[in-house]
Amino acid sequence: MADPLRLGIAGLGTVGAGVVGIVQRHADLLTARTGRTIAITSVSARDRSKDRGVDLSAYAWEDDPVTLAKRDDVDIFVELMGGDSGPALDATKAALAAGKDVVTANKAMLAHHGQALAEAAEAAGRTIRFEAAVAGGIPVVKALTESLAGNKITRVMGVMNGTCNYILTRMESAGLPYDDVFAEADALGFLEADPTLDVGGIDAGHKLALLASIAFGTKPDFDGMRIEGIERISIDDINRAADMGYRIKLLGVAQQTADGVEQRMQPCLVPASSPIGQLEGGTNMVVIEGDAVEQIVLRGPGAGQGPTASAVMGDVCDLARGIRIPTFGQPAGTLADSPPARSARPAPYYLRMTLADKPGALAKVATILGQHELSIDRMRQYDHAELEAPVLIVTHAAAPDALDAALRALETTDVVLAPPVALRIEAV
Amino acid sequence: MADPLRLGIAGLGTVGAGVVGIVQRHADLLTARTGRTIAITSVSARDRSKDRGVDLSAYAWEDDPVTLAKRDDVDIFVELMGGDSGPALDATKAALAAGKDVVTANKAMLAHHGQALAEAAEAAGRTIRFEAAVAGGIPVVKALTESLAGNKITRVMGVMNGTCNYILTRMESAGLPYDDVFAEADALGFLEADPTLDVGGIDAGHKLALLASIAFGTKPDFDGMRIEGIERISIDDINRAADMGYRIKLLGVAQQTADGVEQRMQPCLVPASSPIGQLEGGTNMVVIEGDAVEQIVLRGPGAGQGPTASAVMGDVCDLARGIRIPTFGQPAGTLADSPPARSARPAPYYLRMTLADKPGALAKVATILGQHELSIDRMRQYDHAELEAPVLIVTHAAAPDALDAALRALETTDVVLAPPVALRIEAV
Repeated sequence: MADPLRLGIAGLGTVGAGVVGIVQRHADLLTARTGRTIAITSVSARDRSKDRGVDLSAYAWEDDPVTLAKRDDVDIFVELMGGDSGPALDATKAALAAGKDVVTANKAMLAHHGQALAEAAEAAGRTIRFEAAVAGGIPVVKALTESLAGNKITRVMGVMNGTCNYILTRMESAGLPYDDVFAEADALGFLEADPTLDVGGIDAGHKLALLASIAFGTKPDFDGMRIEGIERISIDDINRAADMGYRIKLLGVAQQTADGVEQRMQPCLVPASSPIGQLEGGTNMVVIEGDAVEQIVLRGPGAGQGPTASAVMGDVCDLARGIRIPTFGQPAGTLADSPPARSARPAPYYLRMTLADKPGALAKVATILGQHELSIDRMRQYDHAELEAPVLIVTHAAAPDALDAALRALETTDVVLAPPVALRIEAV
Repeated sequence: MADPLRLGIAGLGTVGAGVVGIVQRHADLLTARTGRTIAITSVSARDRSKDRGVDLSAYAWEDDPVTLAKRDDVDIFVELMGGDSGPALDATKAALAAGKDVVTANKAMLAHHGQALAEAAEAAGRTIRFEAAVAGGIPVVKALTESLAGNKITRVMGVMNGTCNYILTRMESAGLPYDDVFAEADALGFLEADPTLDVGGIDAGHKLALLASIAFGTKPDFDGMRIEGIERISIDDINRAADMGYRIKLLGVAQQTADGVEQRMQPCLVPASSPIGQLEGGTNMVVIEGDAVEQIVLRGPGAGQGPTASAVMGDVCDLARGIRIPTFGQPAGTLADSPPARSARPAPYYLRMTLADKPGALAKVATILGQHELSIDRMRQYDHAELEAPVLIVTHAAAPDALDAALRALETTDVVLAPPVALRIEAV
């Protein structure tokens, strides 16, 4: 049998403890499948004394993840600390420089530093695998990088933040306002330390940027992504959408356009009966379209100890089996710079705005929309409070640029009291 | 750059022509992703003169696939002829003996000869990859073998024959009887040369046997599978199921039980609103459950030129990248013999039978069911023809063995005019 494969694990939170659990529980299974013993030699975390529900006594302890990353008895540095820079980045760089492969669940770090890290990995003859960074237990990185390698990928799309999906589905099912459900999610421990990473769409955006890089052979370009969060979605929006047969989802779309790669992460209305519309709670779904495969849809748990540890171990087993693919599927030096592009593809839009309750307000809005070639499919003014009139408008299919121009024009009037909520209606 | 990877393709039907098309169309993409030129050196098919819509003039032609399989200028033998033995098997053996890797879409051959072929591959230091053999473009073999390698797999389940699913969904949507839709499917070219492979559940059974082997580390055991086809499903069954909120699907289930591996492929009633219940036409869906990942669901086109060629090329790219995993995920010699097992898990059953229209017939049926501890949830005798009374019964949850015993007892009576149709109701 080949030599044991030795893991050094930095970060012993939920996922780290899950990885330790699998290595301990499934030692025989892992050896049968990979032909090697998979051994943990050393671990690192902030607090040595914390009970994590797994026995760590057989492993060396390092207070400093950078020291762990460089240990001679580590073949794979398993980075489960998180954070887009700081210790995670330092230790990952150290591991690569010391000739270790890296397995990580850290989408933030890769979205921001993936290109430089991929180059460093290649210089060292190593790779970085990150299945666990995107959509938890769903094998989307592998599907895109390996299974679909014979395809020109045309579009990647999906719901990739379980917390947002939990909040949106819970608002609908319980009829609760955003703030209440946000507080619930916080109490349940569903939110990142900085919750804007979740509800601001940033975490999901990190994931989409990584998938886009693999799909289109481009450098990860998180800064080129258009991102909107779910913070401004009200229970009214959810109810109005439901009345029309839609549900609101934080939907990511990355696609090749004539001008470059379009990447957007934004709440959209999707048909309630569609697979994406039916996604509940923390479940994630990724849709991949390629010229040969047509469309495949992958669904599963987007987070959680078991599913995320499963993804980490899939990467570890690949490396144990000698599979070492370039980080983003092709050599980092061959990844293209792709200008951020914007789809011109028209779609209907849902608009909600609050108008000053004075004569001619609605007419003014309708005029501005018309001036920007936005034609109105339905418009409704509903149960309004004193001096404020909430208005709901659904447009016919309109170009995104036309919509943006109209929104800017609306904001300059004296009749629209706050920036309108504008949600694209996607026929997914 | 590494040496070119040279393919010899035997079988130039829909899928073979699709593979040629991808290699020609995406030469640059394939090289960017694998670091190698992927070249076709030689091809083989029954009829050299047929126009397949692709230019084959640059490739050597072999009339005999065995000769092609042994050519010095072939690194990978791509077997797309089909058939569980004959030329496909002969050529695959020849390729392995000559030290070639094999990529195949041939589930029948692997379900019957997979163990021997996997052993032959290992003896030669080669492998057989077969993503295209199961569920067309859906990367289920890779997900199970690689992505979920850290899991003890508990269950694999799915709809894996697009033709059966087409027939069942078309019967429902058009309100047509089985024979009419079967004739339609035949006219559309959806059926295998021997249509019982499709409608008898055999083709789907082949696929399930391969997945079960990977999932449970057992030798492929097609003979140990319980298989029922869809031939006896009537439009009445479909309509009655729909009335109760169900749809009928040819569902495969493989799971580890205390006594061994249970494998069954049979038409079942599933909730119409479930993801499997909503599958339309030729779409396939595979559900994989593991102790860490919980559940992932993969959906996509189960057949067709592009999707199947995509799967073939995924395997080719893996080999080009140096990925060479044992055929069924672990060395063939370590695969266990597993006795076929039968789940004791109770489920409700749908029963349709035709009774002789004479006094006491229904009472006799009810008595027999009661004697076998099958309790009746609902029973309905409907619009009956002269001398024959169709009866529909839905039982409460019952053990499969109890149901079988009751069915045997019913058949020995003089009141049940034909073997009852009995369909398990699965809460998928």
